[in-house]
Amino acid sequence: MFVLVNLKAYPCDPVAVAQAADRVTTEHDVAIAPQTAHIGAVAETGVETWAQHVSPVGHGSHTGSTLAEATADAGAAGTLLNHSEKRLKLADIDASLDAAERTGLSTVVCANNPDQIAAVAALGPDAVAVEPPELIGTGTPVSQADPDIVRDAVAAANEVDPEVDVYCGAGISTGDDVAAAAELGADGVLLASGVAKADDPQAALESLVE
Amino acid sequence: MFVLVNLKAYPCDPVAVAQAADRVTTEHDVAIAPQTAHIGAVAETGVETWAQHVSPVGHGSHTGSTLAEATADAGAAGTLLNHSEKRLKLADIDASLDAAERTGLSTVVCANNPDQIAAVAALGPDAVAVEPPELIGTGTPVSQADPDIVRDAVAAANEVDPEVDVYCGAGISTGDDVAAAAELGADGVLLASGVAKADDPQAALESLVE
Amino acid sequence: MFVLVNLKAYPCDPVAVAQAADRVTTEHDVAIAPQTAHIGAVAETGVETWAQHVSPVGHGSHTGSTLAEATADAGAAGTLLNHSEKRLKLADIDASLDAAERTGLSTVVCANNPDQIAAVAALGPDAVAVEPPELIGTGTPVSQADPDIVRDAVAAANEVDPEVDVYCGAGISTGDDVAAAAELGADGVLLASGVAKADDPQAALESLVE
Amino acid sequence: MFVLVNLKAYPCDPVAVAQAADRVTTEHDVAIAPQTAHIGAVAETGVETWAQHVSPVGHGSHTGSTLAEATADAGAAGTLLNHSEKRLKLADIDASLDAAERTGLSTVVCANNPDQIAAVAALGPDAVAVEPPELIGTGTPVSQADPDIVRDAVAAANEVDPEVDVYCGAGISTGDDVAAAAELGADGVLLASGVAKADDPQAALESLVE
Repeated sequence: MFVLVNLKAYPCDPVAVAQAADRVTTEHDVAIAPQTAHIGAVAETGVETWAQHVSPVGHGSHTGSTLAEATADAGAAGTLLNHSEKRLKLADIDASLDAAERTGLSTVVCANNPDQIAAVAALGPDAVAVEPPELIGTGTPVSQADPDIVRDAVAAANEVDPEVDVYCGAGISTGDDVAAAAELGADGVLLASGVAKADDPQAALESLVE
Repeated sequence: MFVLVNLKAYPCDPVAVAQAADRVTTEHDVAIAPQTAHIGAVAETGVETWAQHVSPVGHGSHTGSTLAEATADAGAAGTLLNHSEKRLKLADIDASLDAAERTGLSTVVCANNPDQIAAVAALGPDAVAVEPPELIGTGTPVSQADPDIVRDAVAAANEVDPEVDVYCGAGISTGDDVAAAAELGADGVLLASGVAKADDPQAALESLVE
Repeated sequence: MFVLVNLKAYPCDPVAVAQAADRVTTEHDVAIAPQTAHIGAVAETGVETWAQHVSPVGHGSHTGSTLAEATADAGAAGTLLNHSEKRLKLADIDASLDAAERTGLSTVVCANNPDQIAAVAALGPDAVAVEPPELIGTGTPVSQADPDIVRDAVAAANEVDPEVDVYCGAGISTGDDVAAAAELGADGVLLASGVAKADDPQAALESLVE
Repeated sequence: MFVLVNLKAYPCDPVAVAQAADRVTTEHDVAIAPQTAHIGAVAETGVETWAQHVSPVGHGSHTGSTLAEATADAGAAGTLLNHSEKRLKLADIDASLDAAERTGLSTVVCANNPDQIAAVAALGPDAVAVEPPELIGTGTPVSQADPDIVRDAVAAANEVDPEVDVYCGAGISTGDDVAAAAELGADGVLLASGVAKADDPQAALESLVE
């Protein structure tokens, strides 16, 4: 299972979380997605580092963009796209995927429901992630609150392109949640507050990957 | 004069430009605004480092945001806002100014024309910058192509709040352009391609600040 | 006092509300702002009709825009801009004001607080409106919940341009609320749910203007 | 073939164009998409009338929205979505399709290329339309400039859902262009300036449908 910890704009120490992730021995792949300004410092810990977003543009006159090349240069290995807190225009998801591919970043495109999962799978990402917005931050795991949405997302992505991995997110915080996601067919999980807002991120990560 | 070099998404080496800026002895204050992912590396050179943009949000669930706190933490001393390539909603300019102030970042808010300069001056930034979009990247300095827009911007900002500095941008690439801006009442200049796309950024900076 | 009834996307009969407004004898000027698709039908009742928004563009290749010329052609006499539910980029407020002026539409630009009121007043609208977003739809009138924000907005607009009228909105539903707004220096009020969601819009309007 | 004439924000008389469409005897279905403010007047001519866009929202506090219910109420029979001049977030395309379906509007979702056509087909619209942005307004028909993009779009949509019709647009102005589109597998065409900017819209329509 791939475990992607999205630090969002939480007031955590991203390097400390990354070091904790590095110390946790696990059969899972754990990656950390910090603020763009922290990608360099997080990548230096040796932990797999992801961007939370990259812009659809390439090199040029684009003030305030998040250039895929710059995030890769700072150490990012992949990027989230179209998270429910950073919804993109369809044409921009397509162009951001091109930007990521051009710079060697892996990609996970988020979506609300199985129809949208089929839509983004058609654009050729490495993975898609289904995250029902109403469950984000609730502490109730999607695998328990709405197992069918995970199963349907896996089926929808597979029908479009069996090569596309499927992750799920929202409310995941324990190893049981990760195991339940795997049983529903998911290849990975997204989580955020369960680790980033934990008093002891290392303990939270250990509980998650045990 | 304050000289802010906006590297946008240009394919330059931001650290090399920063080091060049550091080597150029000048009576002007020179700052470099790289991609967010490069703020840490640029700040390590010792050159004053700026963000190209910060989001209006604070700590919280804001995936893909550019948190002011994170840019400051990485070494930024200030931020551009509302550049013509990153136009913001009025309410977001206001909130991004709050975010910058909260984290100790200096602020320059860009605008198209003297009316908009008066508008953004009313929001209490450290400085405003008038950049006629049609002159950006042309090589024709605004101080020559449209000196009245600089004079009118200075007058408009002063009428609203005499404490707000006024910069100008678009087409500036030589020391004469900087001197002309100063004569029109500007306290600083914004430039981008003249340095970032130069074959020899250090020579470009020397020509600029001589 | 100018009384602008914003029907938003409420499930009311816009023509019935307009006819009710027409029947209410009042010393106030009452205008109705329906959905764009209903401007023609509402204007036919003879009531002053406003748009809820117009795009910053002029004639041209702009699919899905709300062209100021088209709203005027259908019968609109004015337009709201930058409502808290339709926040605009600063440069677009400026361009939408140009579009409205070009087509003879009166303009009211909304803003959250006195600083933003000063900012939009600098752009030369006919009027500005302060509407604290947290009070919209609450039923608690801004004139009671936060009288200082109305006084400060009036002062801020006057300092920038005494010709600009100042309206206030949020929570206004009775004649007392309108009178209180006038005492605080407002030249008009914006309201919405108090009329649009009333069982008897005519009675609600009568209560408002008595 | 379905022929959808998008009047965008062109300075034409939408009722005159609609009446011209009504007079043209044709085996094709011709529909006119005017500015939202003109839907009522155009629908009164008896011609099939479309919206250029509807918002993803339903009834509620949504100032400045284009409510699907209001366009239907004014006489619209369908709506364009995600035109290249009005690109939408993926989640909003999904929600706007729901809004259209709820109100009985037919839907055509535009996209740039076959991958995006597959993506939007997965959301269950009545039809999709491929319009290469670089050909819009050029006068060179897509069926001639890039026939493969039409064939590939037809194939991509069919693979996702054979029930979804496929239209093409960009540069179409003659009956030969319409015939060429049909030969490539398209079920309809979108056009705009060829009719809306014609000196004689009726002649332009006759040439188109002959």
